[in-house]
Amino acid sequence: MVKRNPHVAKLAGSYLFPEIVRRKEAFLKRTPHARLISLGIGDTTEPLPPAIANSISQTAKDLSTHEGYSGYGPEEGVLPLRNLISSQLYGGEFAPDEVFISDGTNSDIGRLQTLFGSNTTVAVQDPTYPVYVDTSVILGQTASFNALSKQYHGIHYMPCSPDNDFFPVLSSLPPCDLIYFCSPNNPTGHAATKAQLTDLVNYARKHRSIIIYDSAYSAYITEEGVPRSIYEIDGAREVAIELGSFSKMAGFTGVRLGWTVVPKELAFEEGHSINRDWNRVHTTFFNGASNLAQAGGMAVLQPEGLQAIDQQVKFYLANAALLKEILLKEGVELFGGTNAPYLWVRFPGISSWDAFESLLEQAHLITAPGSGFGPAGEGFIRMSAFGSRLNIEQAGQRLSAFFSSR
Amino acid sequence: MVKRNPHVAKLAGSYLFPEIVRRKEAFLKRTPHARLISLGIGDTTEPLPPAIANSISQTAKDLSTHEGYSGYGPEEGVLPLRNLISSQLYGGEFAPDEVFISDGTNSDIGRLQTLFGSNTTVAVQDPTYPVYVDTSVILGQTASFNALSKQYHGIHYMPCSPDNDFFPVLSSLPPCDLIYFCSPNNPTGHAATKAQLTDLVNYARKHRSIIIYDSAYSAYITEEGVPRSIYEIDGAREVAIELGSFSKMAGFTGVRLGWTVVPKELAFEEGHSINRDWNRVHTTFFNGASNLAQAGGMAVLQPEGLQAIDQQVKFYLANAALLKEILLKEGVELFGGTNAPYLWVRFPGISSWDAFESLLEQAHLITAPGSGFGPAGEGFIRMSAFGSRLNIEQAGQRLSAFFSSR
Repeated sequence: MVKRNPHVAKLAGSYLFPEIVRRKEAFLKRTPHARLISLGIGDTTEPLPPAIANSISQTAKDLSTHEGYSGYGPEEGVLPLRNLISSQLYGGEFAPDEVFISDGTNSDIGRLQTLFGSNTTVAVQDPTYPVYVDTSVILGQTASFNALSKQYHGIHYMPCSPDNDFFPVLSSLPPCDLIYFCSPNNPTGHAATKAQLTDLVNYARKHRSIIIYDSAYSAYITEEGVPRSIYEIDGAREVAIELGSFSKMAGFTGVRLGWTVVPKELAFEEGHSINRDWNRVHTTFFNGASNLAQAGGMAVLQPEGLQAIDQQVKFYLANAALLKEILLKEGVELFGGTNAPYLWVRFPGISSWDAFESLLEQAHLITAPGSGFGPAGEGFIRMSAFGSRLNIEQAGQRLSAFFSSR
Repeated sequence: MVKRNPHVAKLAGSYLFPEIVRRKEAFLKRTPHARLISLGIGDTTEPLPPAIANSISQTAKDLSTHEGYSGYGPEEGVLPLRNLISSQLYGGEFAPDEVFISDGTNSDIGRLQTLFGSNTTVAVQDPTYPVYVDTSVILGQTASFNALSKQYHGIHYMPCSPDNDFFPVLSSLPPCDLIYFCSPNNPTGHAATKAQLTDLVNYARKHRSIIIYDSAYSAYITEEGVPRSIYEIDGAREVAIELGSFSKMAGFTGVRLGWTVVPKELAFEEGHSINRDWNRVHTTFFNGASNLAQAGGMAVLQPEGLQAIDQQVKFYLANAALLKEILLKEGVELFGGTNAPYLWVRFPGISSWDAFESLLEQAHLITAPGSGFGPAGEGFIRMSAFGSRLNIEQAGQRLSAFFSSR
């Protein structure tokens, strides 16, 4: 009889966002007339720019003609899109066979863990996007969960807090194979500086680690000089894989489109090309992103599309600025919101889930408890700036009242 | 320094279809004016029915409005589509939380291997769709490749040939956890009979194995009484997971949409629900199928859509009948083509790749060598009936000339 996969059994608790949904639904059962506003899951809310939607719409129509129909595309994505990503987002620095199109960063992370296998040691920022840890656990790279430390044995957690300017103390990091690094960080909203990323790349070069750099929020970087890509750092091509996404950049959270850059300079200890093995894993486990999503991606990367999505990013950043101003006026300690659509708000003396419950009960706001992103997130709440202006303004009023009454 | 994943290193040779493309391109370099016709990769060629394309097109347009925009959907797929799959394809036999929407069977196979983990023993039909074996190797379920037997140690190959009516001799199968079973089979085109599937289910019940039943070609079953789903067999809900796909059923090879049925009756040895673990793995490794593809899937499952795709399936089956008639007239031994879009053609005395090369050189036809689907496929060629009528007719003439001159 088939035994349960012991690695799946190791998973502690449920994934963060389903738990938030569960608590939201329980609250609505108790309080059916509450008008909740969500600052919880980071999900885009603005409609697709017409030029992009029209391009997808036309592609769908074309699929009903003999001339416009297409079946399987290359598993790695259509060539024009791979070229556009290189030319528009990386100054043409990458050959098309270094850019792999996917249905999103989440799927790519799982496939990358599969590429490197279960004998890999992994380091993650703490707090961070939970998928790095969960996929690592399921694929058998870790030992058991320690209920006291809230950590899995075998994963190196790199605490990132206001105390270290949200950048890990690399000198205390034991040697490890893969370093997952998300910047601008989800959930803290901190975008690593050029000096910080230079330290990271130098560390990886010295210790022969590979950085898996998640740049899903790079479009939100507004500060001059803050890198949008790890490849802005000298030597990164030899040590870094970069994940990119149309989700938050272009409102494609439902459309599903992302990419992975795997430079040909990357090699395993034996000298074998990582790019070549990734090609094999990607094309074996994946049959290509939807042709509709890829058509949308190509429209995004035209001048008109790029201008339209820039407006959307500015809109969400204005939301973030609005919330930030209100919270600062209330004397709340917070971070992020400048180079990211997330605010990272400290709740001194109480747990993240208690803060979550208070905000739900008293302000009818859904948020994301910081501890769901790792033990060092305890005592924080992540607030998302995705939302209509009206909702964000009302959320701001509720937050103002909430903190004034404390 | 990061070591190469030893399981990836085990992979023998390249994946079948890239190798076909490589040989095709080499031929075109030598013979640039050849007009090749492809009976190779099984890829749909008929345009989407207008009702389905229009529905996707409208969904794309709606995404540019505040009312019609949607971001992340449930990772398991939108509820109306899960309900439609159950009601239209399974007589309402499954609850929506037993139906999981995906971007296609290929991705689901990888995630299923991840669900069960690397200590699983796997059996596959031989020949079969290569992804079952390749994902199993990469995830560490096998030992090394045996160049003599052309098999991976640790995988049970179940030879399926005309000698056993393309159904494995189960009495000689050692105990194993997972049995991958594809019916109608890719590449042989054989659809297992009710008696054969009853034997398979009974075997799994007796030995507590789990059947992963790939029904990607079930829409092509024309014979009365041949099951379209493993769940037509009594007791299958306790031992079988079924993979389904819109790719060949509705021309969605490029749009990307599939599903997995995981009945709640399925349990691990310890009693833990397989459905629950699958939910965790699916939602951790995957963020949902594209909302555009899901809109298309819902249009397929309306009465108008179902009627339109039925016409398309009949069109491809008429192609298959056309090729079959010509080949039989030439006295060629072949199988399939009645309940599947594939013909399985014997080439006595020569290897599959030699037959492939002859057909390429002499008839300018791309085909798929049987040995690429497993060692028991040696000596056969798979011919796909996907294509325009004109191309299939011309391919038929070339085949006629090819075999007449032998």
